Formats: sequence, structure tokens, C-alpha cells
Amino acid sequence: MKLPNYEDVMRASHRLVNYAHHTPVLQSQTLNERLGAQVFFKCENFQRIGAFKFRGGYNALANLTEAQRQRGVVAFSSGNHAQAVALAAKLFQVPATIVMPRSAPAAKKAATLGYGATVVEYDRLTEDRERIAQRFVDEQGMTLIPPFAHADVIAGQGTAVKELIEEVGGLDALFVPLGGGGLLSGSLLAANALNPSCKVYGVEPEGGNDAQQSLAKGEIVRLDCPQAIADGALTPALAPMTFALIQQYAAGVVTVSDAELISALQFFASRMKLVVEPTGCLGAAAVMQERIPLKGMRVGVLISGGNVDLAQYGQLLATR
Amino acid sequence: MKLPNYEDVMRASHRLVNYAHHTPVLQSQTLNERLGAQVFFKCENFQRIGAFKFRGGYNALANLTEAQRQRGVVAFSSGNHAQAVALAAKLFQVPATIVMPRSAPAAKKAATLGYGATVVEYDRLTEDRERIAQRFVDEQGMTLIPPFAHADVIAGQGTAVKELIEEVGGLDALFVPLGGGGLLSGSLLAANALNPSCKVYGVEPEGGNDAQQSLAKGEIVRLDCPQAIADGALTPALAPMTFALIQQYAAGVVTVSDAELISALQFFASRMKLVVEPTGCLGAAAVMQERIPLKGMRVGVLISGGNVDLAQYGQLLATR
Repeated sequence: MKLPNYEDVMRASHRLVNYAHHTPVLQSQTLNERLGAQVFFKCENFQRIGAFKFRGGYNALANLTEAQRQRGVVAFSSGNHAQAVALAAKLFQVPATIVMPRSAPAAKKAATLGYGATVVEYDRLTEDRERIAQRFVDEQGMTLIPPFAHADVIAGQGTAVKELIEEVGGLDALFVPLGGGGLLSGSLLAANALNPSCKVYGVEPEGGNDAQQSLAKGEIVRLDCPQAIADGALTPALAPMTFALIQQYAAGVVTVSDAELISALQFFASRMKLVVEPTGCLGAAAVMQERIPLKGMRVGVLISGGNVDLAQYGQLLATR
Repeated sequence: MKLPNYEDVMRASHRLVNYAHHTPVLQSQTLNERLGAQVFFKCENFQRIGAFKFRGGYNALANLTEAQRQRGVVAFSSGNHAQAVALAAKLFQVPATIVMPRSAPAAKKAATLGYGATVVEYDRLTEDRERIAQRFVDEQGMTLIPPFAHADVIAGQGTAVKELIEEVGGLDALFVPLGGGGLLSGSLLAANALNPSCKVYGVEPEGGNDAQQSLAKGEIVRLDCPQAIADGALTPALAPMTFALIQQYAAGVVTVSDAELISALQFFASRMKLVVEPTGCLGAAAVMQERIPLKGMRVGVLISGGNVDLAQYGQLLATR
């Protein structure tokens, strides 16, 4: 297993320059005053497809050979990775097949089809999406683009924190949403190279703290039924590649509750006028709850995405 | 009545440079492709206090004499103007009294008090807020800062469109939310000076189209019970000052329905990840509905603010 390094992040950054948005960094004076700290939010909710996933998807497609591109790519995802691979494939004029649960929201299916991808539906309860995807690899020679366990995907995700540190300068601490660990792994590579004194924390939902347990135990722990409103962070386990990078570079993993996520989501809407999906609130919730003492510090927070179902989001806003 | 001119806008711009945010201009590729046009959204929902009103309030306070500042200011508003005057007064260390209805949302009252202003409550059904404010003027020598019928307020509001045109260059059309006409009047001064070929439209709610009727009739028409979800555009009538500027410079006034406002509000949340209040959606709704043919044009839209009651906003998001 060859781990990606910061040079891979730099190469990804050069590839992405005209294709990914250089997303804005925003601050809240209210929050800064409350914490006695300076908090910089890197807004990947403004990224193409509404989430950081475009960075990794595009970088993975960019690294394919001409022969691989002709045979096409396949991905399985009900969420942002599906749209990321579909849009990247459209930009490279590569055929893409996305394996999605039949129960996925109609809007997500429509968006994926809108990018010109083929959607293959499966039954979440009776079928195995990895096996379906593997069939396209075996029978049609397609290349599988996994959501996080892939060096090019991780390197692409790392470009967000590279931009953040280059724009605002050195940070004392950085908080990153953590599901399968692709975004955190890339962030660790960028922060370790550009700002080695910065302590980088992964933030998981309480109901899906497999990475926290994995670090404590020293081996990958699998949680079969993680439960939290942060639907993008419900992956049951890290991959060996992301676990290795997190073990090596992360300062730790902290958790937040659903109520703390909702509070952060409401703060973003009411004070910062930003729509952030529950998973995207993980880093912010840890900071707002001061899981780690932050007084006097310069703190980075990754907002990973802003793709919401409006009815469900509306309910979360109205929750007291 | 001395009307403000573009030089007043320029002076306001110099005063505001270190105090107001230079708000971002965003685009939606989806909308641009759908309209076959290029639409630039000036995001005053990211302005201090969450709305453009800070610009005019600050500029009005900046122009007071030392003696006036010592006696303090008074304003009546249940909305964004209250917070704008309260924050500007705090920055100038001027005492401020805000006359608010007893029924105003607790969050707005708290925010106004948080800026150090004194809040005087009145009963919306039985008391006259203008008379209450006038008492503070007569008895304590305070200066009244009106929400729109004031040259310095209008000049301050005009700085948003000045920034927009300086940043993106010439526009063919510009759409601006229209209530009392302060923002539109300032926008007209800026656009007429910097970009005289740009057609500038005010956008009113259908249920409160007093300005449209006023232009048609050639005199100020008063609507006593305007009804629309755009609560910031329910002023019953223009002032002589704003009417004069709109008559002179505006290309026209168009209207949008509540359903069209909700559709724009949902588009901002789902596609652009922006929280925009219903009044702030007026310009965007007119563009999305193509009230005026826009194909091939460069179009500016002012998003006037993003201050929402979360429960009510959540309901609007969930409306089908």
C-alpha cells in the first residue's frame, strides 16, 4: 500500500486550478468574540456539486490513462461522491456508471443523470453495491473510483486545506469532518507540510465514532449500524490507507452529538447565512462546543458540504 | 428638498471602507445556463447585521455634528434598520433609542439591545411609532434617522451597487428589491453615474405594488394594508425623495408573487447554499421568472438581506 504524500496534493492542486472553485474563507465576529479565538471557515459548501468531493473525484479521473478513460469509470454512492464522479467524468468526456440505492432522493438521482452518467439502481436491503460495481470492473473493464480509499482521491481532498492555509496563514488547530477519512487524510498531508505545528482533529458523530475507537485500540474498528444525522459520516470503518495516515498525523478524534450538530447548523443559517448539511457541521460543532480549549488560538474549520433535502433541512432549522 | 447625487455615494463609500463588509458577488452556473445570461448576485446578506441597511445607517451617523452625536439618535423599525442604526451608533459611541413594536421577535430585540441601544416598545394597534420617536426629538434633542427618506441613508445604500459595478464591470440590467425605495434610489445614483446604459428595475411584491402604481399615476400612491411574505417591502408608500429619484432614473418597476419568492428562496438554499430572507429574494425572483427578456445579457441582482426567523424560514423551505 503506497500512501499519498504532500507532493500528490500539490500535483492535484495544479490539475484543479481551472476546474474546482477556490472557495471562500468566512469568519463570524460573534463566534470569535464568544470563543476569544479567530475561527476561519473554509466553505466547501460553495464547491462544485456543493461539496469537497469534487476535488478528489476530479483528481482521480485526471490520473487515468487514455485506455482507462475509454472504458469508463464506475462508483457507488448515494451522496456527494456520486455527483462528484459524474461531473468529473463529464468534464473528461469519460462514460460513468453510478450505483445508487433505489431509495436515494429523486433530486440526487436527477443531478447525477443531469451530468450524463448512467445510474444503476440496487436494493439496499438485499443487494451488495460493491459487488454490483465490481461486476462492471470485471465484465466491462471499467475503473472503480472509491469514495475515500484511494491515493488520488485523498490527494484531491487535501487541496482544500492547502488553499485555506495559503490564504489565512498558520493555524494552531484545524477541525475536519470525518467519515471514511478521505478528507481528513488529505487535510493531514497538507497541514503537516505547510503548517506542521497545527494540531489537526477529526470530528465524528457520537453515534458513529469508529475512528475514535480505532485510534484507541490501534486497529480498525467496524461499527455496523452507525446512527447520526450526519449521513455523510456513517461509513462503518476507515480503510487501511486512511487509518494509517490518521494514526501517523492526527492530533486526535473528537465527537459531537446530533443536538450539537443542529445547533451549529442553526448558527450557520441564522448568523452566517450559510446552508450547511449536517455532516458539514461536524468541525464547527466541535469548535462551538470547545471540545478542545481554543482561547487565543487561530482555528481552521472545514465546512465539507451544503447539499440538503429542503424539507428535512427545514425541520432541522425549526428544531428547538 | 435636496436630492442626493453620485458624489454623496462616493463620499459614503470612502467613509464605509473600513466599517462595512465588501460583500461577495456570486453566480450560479445552473441559472446562467437556464437563462442564457450571466447573472451577478451582490450578497448583502453577508453585510454586517445581515442586510444592506448598515450602509445607510452608518453613513447617516457619520454625517452628524459633534453636538448631534452627544444628544443621540432615535429610529423606529421592527426590522433591519433598527439593528443598522444600533450598530452604527455603537461604533460612533452615540446613544441610540430604537422604537420597536412590543410584538417584534425576541431575537431582533435581543440583537438591538446587544449593540447597546435602548429599546422603547409600543403597541402596534393603539400607538403611533412616528409620534413616539418625534417625542424623543422634541424633548431630548435627538436626531431621527429615518429608514429611507434621507439623503445620507440613500447615499449609503448606493455603495452596494457601486461595489458591484466596479467589481464585475458594465451590466445591461439590474434588479433591486423595492420597499420604501432607499436601496433602489441609491442604486439608481450609482448605476446612472458608472453605467448609464444599464436599465435598473425596482422589484415589489404583487401584494404591495404601491411604487408601480405611483409611477403609472405620476404621483405617490399609498397602500394601507400591503400583504406579502416580503416583510421588508411592505412600506405603504414611497417618500417624495425616493419617488423623485425613481421617476427620474428607473427603467420600471416589476412585481413578483409570494410563490415566486418562495421558489427563489428555495433555489438560493438548495443550489447556492445561501440563506436569503423573502424580501432579499425580490430581485432574484424577477430574474428567474424573466419578467424582462434577459437572453445574452449581463444582469446584476441585489440580495438585500438574510435575516430570517428560523422556524418560519424552515416552513418556507418545506413548502411545495
